[in-house]
Amino acid sequence: MSDAAITNTAEGSYPTGKSGRPSKVAIIGAGAVGSTLAYACVTKGVAREIVLQDIAKEKVEAEALDIAQGIQFTSAGAVSGSDDPEICRGADVIAITAGAKQKPGQSRLDLAGATVGIMEKILPKLVEVAPHAIFLLVANPVDVVTYCARKITGLPDNQVFGSGTVLDTARMRYLVSLETGTATQNIHGYIAGEHGDSEVALWSSCEIGGVPVTQWGRTLDGGIFDQAKRDRIAYDVVRSAYRIIEGKGVTNYAVGLAVQKIISAVLNDEQRVLTISPLLENWHGISDVCMAVPTIVGREGAGRRLELPLTLDERDRLTASAQRLREVARGLGY
Amino acid sequence: MSDAAITNTAEGSYPTGKSGRPSKVAIIGAGAVGSTLAYACVTKGVAREIVLQDIAKEKVEAEALDIAQGIQFTSAGAVSGSDDPEICRGADVIAITAGAKQKPGQSRLDLAGATVGIMEKILPKLVEVAPHAIFLLVANPVDVVTYCARKITGLPDNQVFGSGTVLDTARMRYLVSLETGTATQNIHGYIAGEHGDSEVALWSSCEIGGVPVTQWGRTLDGGIFDQAKRDRIAYDVVRSAYRIIEGKGVTNYAVGLAVQKIISAVLNDEQRVLTISPLLENWHGISDVCMAVPTIVGREGAGRRLELPLTLDERDRLTASAQRLREVARGLGY
Amino acid sequence: MSDAAITNTAEGSYPTGKSGRPSKVAIIGAGAVGSTLAYACVTKGVAREIVLQDIAKEKVEAEALDIAQGIQFTSAGAVSGSDDPEICRGADVIAITAGAKQKPGQSRLDLAGATVGIMEKILPKLVEVAPHAIFLLVANPVDVVTYCARKITGLPDNQVFGSGTVLDTARMRYLVSLETGTATQNIHGYIAGEHGDSEVALWSSCEIGGVPVTQWGRTLDGGIFDQAKRDRIAYDVVRSAYRIIEGKGVTNYAVGLAVQKIISAVLNDEQRVLTISPLLENWHGISDVCMAVPTIVGREGAGRRLELPLTLDERDRLTASAQRLREVARGLGY
Amino acid sequence: MSDAAITNTAEGSYPTGKSGRPSKVAIIGAGAVGSTLAYACVTKGVAREIVLQDIAKEKVEAEALDIAQGIQFTSAGAVSGSDDPEICRGADVIAITAGAKQKPGQSRLDLAGATVGIMEKILPKLVEVAPHAIFLLVANPVDVVTYCARKITGLPDNQVFGSGTVLDTARMRYLVSLETGTATQNIHGYIAGEHGDSEVALWSSCEIGGVPVTQWGRTLDGGIFDQAKRDRIAYDVVRSAYRIIEGKGVTNYAVGLAVQKIISAVLNDEQRVLTISPLLENWHGISDVCMAVPTIVGREGAGRRLELPLTLDERDRLTASAQRLREVARGLGY
Repeated sequence: MSDAAITNTAEGSYPTGKSGRPSKVAIIGAGAVGSTLAYACVTKGVAREIVLQDIAKEKVEAEALDIAQGIQFTSAGAVSGSDDPEICRGADVIAITAGAKQKPGQSRLDLAGATVGIMEKILPKLVEVAPHAIFLLVANPVDVVTYCARKITGLPDNQVFGSGTVLDTARMRYLVSLETGTATQNIHGYIAGEHGDSEVALWSSCEIGGVPVTQWGRTLDGGIFDQAKRDRIAYDVVRSAYRIIEGKGVTNYAVGLAVQKIISAVLNDEQRVLTISPLLENWHGISDVCMAVPTIVGREGAGRRLELPLTLDERDRLTASAQRLREVARGLGY
Repeated sequence: MSDAAITNTAEGSYPTGKSGRPSKVAIIGAGAVGSTLAYACVTKGVAREIVLQDIAKEKVEAEALDIAQGIQFTSAGAVSGSDDPEICRGADVIAITAGAKQKPGQSRLDLAGATVGIMEKILPKLVEVAPHAIFLLVANPVDVVTYCARKITGLPDNQVFGSGTVLDTARMRYLVSLETGTATQNIHGYIAGEHGDSEVALWSSCEIGGVPVTQWGRTLDGGIFDQAKRDRIAYDVVRSAYRIIEGKGVTNYAVGLAVQKIISAVLNDEQRVLTISPLLENWHGISDVCMAVPTIVGREGAGRRLELPLTLDERDRLTASAQRLREVARGLGY
Repeated sequence: MSDAAITNTAEGSYPTGKSGRPSKVAIIGAGAVGSTLAYACVTKGVAREIVLQDIAKEKVEAEALDIAQGIQFTSAGAVSGSDDPEICRGADVIAITAGAKQKPGQSRLDLAGATVGIMEKILPKLVEVAPHAIFLLVANPVDVVTYCARKITGLPDNQVFGSGTVLDTARMRYLVSLETGTATQNIHGYIAGEHGDSEVALWSSCEIGGVPVTQWGRTLDGGIFDQAKRDRIAYDVVRSAYRIIEGKGVTNYAVGLAVQKIISAVLNDEQRVLTISPLLENWHGISDVCMAVPTIVGREGAGRRLELPLTLDERDRLTASAQRLREVARGLGY
Repeated sequence: MSDAAITNTAEGSYPTGKSGRPSKVAIIGAGAVGSTLAYACVTKGVAREIVLQDIAKEKVEAEALDIAQGIQFTSAGAVSGSDDPEICRGADVIAITAGAKQKPGQSRLDLAGATVGIMEKILPKLVEVAPHAIFLLVANPVDVVTYCARKITGLPDNQVFGSGTVLDTARMRYLVSLETGTATQNIHGYIAGEHGDSEVALWSSCEIGGVPVTQWGRTLDGGIFDQAKRDRIAYDVVRSAYRIIEGKGVTNYAVGLAVQKIISAVLNDEQRVLTISPLLENWHGISDVCMAVPTIVGREGAGRRLELPLTLDERDRLTASAQRLREVARGLGY
């Protein structure tokens, strides 16, 4: 309660950490994405303790204090901020948002070099203070950064993965929901591949309450799920992030909610299928790349990658997406 | 689903609007406070529809789209943004965050003139499109701005009030909770008066689970609730906002959560006692000023102002706080 | 607050009724199923007002009062009980649990005559006081009772349906979830047909996170989803209700939760796919029968019946199930 | 998944057990109160694992299976039932509902002998399998049973307490809420003493949002909180349980919700003030009795008993209530 205190606690029900301690989430980077993610985690109450780390000491302490002041209106736990990575000690999940900020017009892949350089600097210390944490990469280009992070940390495959196309998949389902007047929860379909321009909407396995999208018949606007409609939906999913960046310079709100969902799946050991970006080894013949595929996510991190049926075209495009990501990594020396 | 679409819907349970329509909240100002408030409302699911209005067209549309993209991870409803106040038509609550931004070192009262000028410009149109809305002022100096907004709109007393010291009161309770090891929900006490430097912690009526704070005995640190401890808590409450502004230039997270709580009390007709800032008429002899006192908040807005017992000192300090606020309003020609 | 008061209110967020009034659910029958359903609705807070009606006046008033006393520990609204069907006036949903009680060893179809006789007595009055309500039949044999209730009420197809195999489907998904270590939310599959011995597990369209169950490969016990495993799961689903009745004489807890879920889908206009039991007209060639198929459920009641792909065997068994149900209805003069 | 399986699991966020294991609640007695309590715990999701124990093997297994079948519609965890107390091993909370059933016209104190006899039989084994559990007595007459249970188990004071007047206090607050049009959350007041006829409404410390009830002024019906109104409220609180028993033979719904609230306060370490029934030692001069007083409840069980101010009359009546309880215990040889 001293003037220096920037930790705050309140009651609530949280999942427990792996070893039985109360759960702890560390977020690296107190920029727009990192601090919004911390805010979303607190507002949703996903963990007992949330820590925010950034090299900008005054900034990170202020962000944490601002969130902590509101904790009484949530069922969340404790929030603190520091420039010292030591604050992450014993974290169950470390979400890494630190990286170069995406600028209008800039593709996600353009950001790669600088951000991977940051990873080389910060990851070894984080592995030291939280060797059993699940490392969740959020910084873009997330697939390449994740691939490099795996090499830098040397941690097992399950323990390091990226946020992938979790947000893109949710967006696709939402748009199909609008077309069909069916709850989002009953739309089953995925965006896979790179989180970015080469991502692939897997229409062949997309269904609505058990009915394949191709057999759905008339949608609410009287049309059908023909190529034009499917392309328009896929385009809208990719395009929307660019539109937000043009208007406000950054995307932070939606990504904050999507990433807290992934964290929640880990901490609650939900065994939920999410299109995170894990390392692939012979997934439909694709290997040695991190990119988004439907993956079971639980307390151990990335579990089984689901090999759902693909058309030849879907497979070719995913293979191309993988190739593109692999080349960027190679270009960075990984 | 066209490229221009920035509205998003999802399922959930919401309170209904007054006339039976689904509930609608309008937030004026897409700066840090306004957009964070919209985000908190969506994440908490307080209303069926949330609209964000700002004169900066590209910015407000981008903020709304960014929030809307994340709506699938919440139980919230629809979000849209526009520069046209028409978007607020039929709103049940209009929360006004537009105003001059507080700068480091600047007191809240210094901001008055510019912000009241903005109110004179925007309020008449808002009253026109939503004459039955509850107008909730958030822009600082909130008490003075609220007082002027009442005069500008000419609306009944219950319909126009400020966010007052809802956040300050929560902060005080939290600090007492830490001192006593008792749940925040069992700490009953208020910060009243100006939301700012002259606010008053009403210690004489503060109690912990039915026990007056003065009779509590030993706190967890072995001390008692003597003058020093009480002053330190009160100081910390006032001081914390300044510390956040120094570190990050703005406060937005905690205020977002506090204001969504007030909105929720209105929409759900909670009849909850909150230290909002309504017009006072002979409250302990204080009249013709808007400042925070414990007030019942429900669907009709500001209800009964509770006349809880005061010490002479508390009454004197509240009278002085009222006087200070009245003078600022007078200085602005109200 | 008089001694006679058996109504109770508390705050919370509820869906609104169709015409904008606060939502109201009426439950007919204060036996184990009806009163447990009311309790589940209150504990989950699905509606603003819940009324319980039964011819046994003392019993229904006591059940309602007992539930109402606990309402302060929930986010639910008002509960009342009466022997007068007038209490159901203006209800948005009427769930009918009144019927003959299933006895150990007795099949669901054996109950038909007596229960349909009860429907003939009570439905006309209920239609009079709540002509726009969604009528949700729960009494067994639910499919036959629903079919007769449609004829008795003369209401449109969307407005009258049975609880079908919503519970059976949930149970099937749960068992597949246990086999695969995947979240229940990612298991997509249905039990369709009669809620009873002739029900059919639709394995051909059952999938886990997009992967057809037949292509899943090894389950957690090292087996695969062969005929034996699928039959065992289907058997367990049908068998479990009998086991509960043998042990405690009645099933009430699970059915209470399942039916509150259907009510919630209606009141929140969720457009959720549920295996309720609506009238079928040329669903895969099956007509003039009420039995469970995946159906979109929202504020208008039963919407589109989804024609998901079936194998010949599944279709034959569903046709047989329909024939069996039709014969019972014919035997009762419907 | 075998035919014998009566355990069910699902995802969700739960508090952790004391030693870090997932939390576990054991409920002794599968009668109406015990099984409804298990159902309330599951519907609210208060713990990861809930076990139900009763000497009637078929009955307890059927109750547990019936609840488990509905678990997919909740965020709750696992439910199992057994006649073997071994199932309670390692429980964090053991709630004991087993006892003689209250009959119409019978006072709670009449039940004492038989129920204490049951405690002598079952408690030693429960202490053996769960020596660190919080023992929460629910069986009536709860205060006497709790006092005897403490002696039988020999466990520390904090670890054994009764459900006291938690339900009565909630009921009183609700009735004051109705009188004043203020949210229940803002009514602060307690029913203390015996859970039964001699219980005492502590009006002198009862307040509404900081305003003493005696200074509230006009209530919604135009009256004031005079002796007549206060007596009527207190009478209604005591009377309502009798009315329910007359009508349906048992009270189970409200008590289920109230007790799950206490369990939740323990498991989440809420430090919430609740009128449980712990051992008193010089509480306003009252010693060597278990009866309800405002007590801080957290992970360690019963904490500080709050000595809120009493009038002489309140103190005399509580002393009399204590004396009455002590005599019953003495009459049973404790």
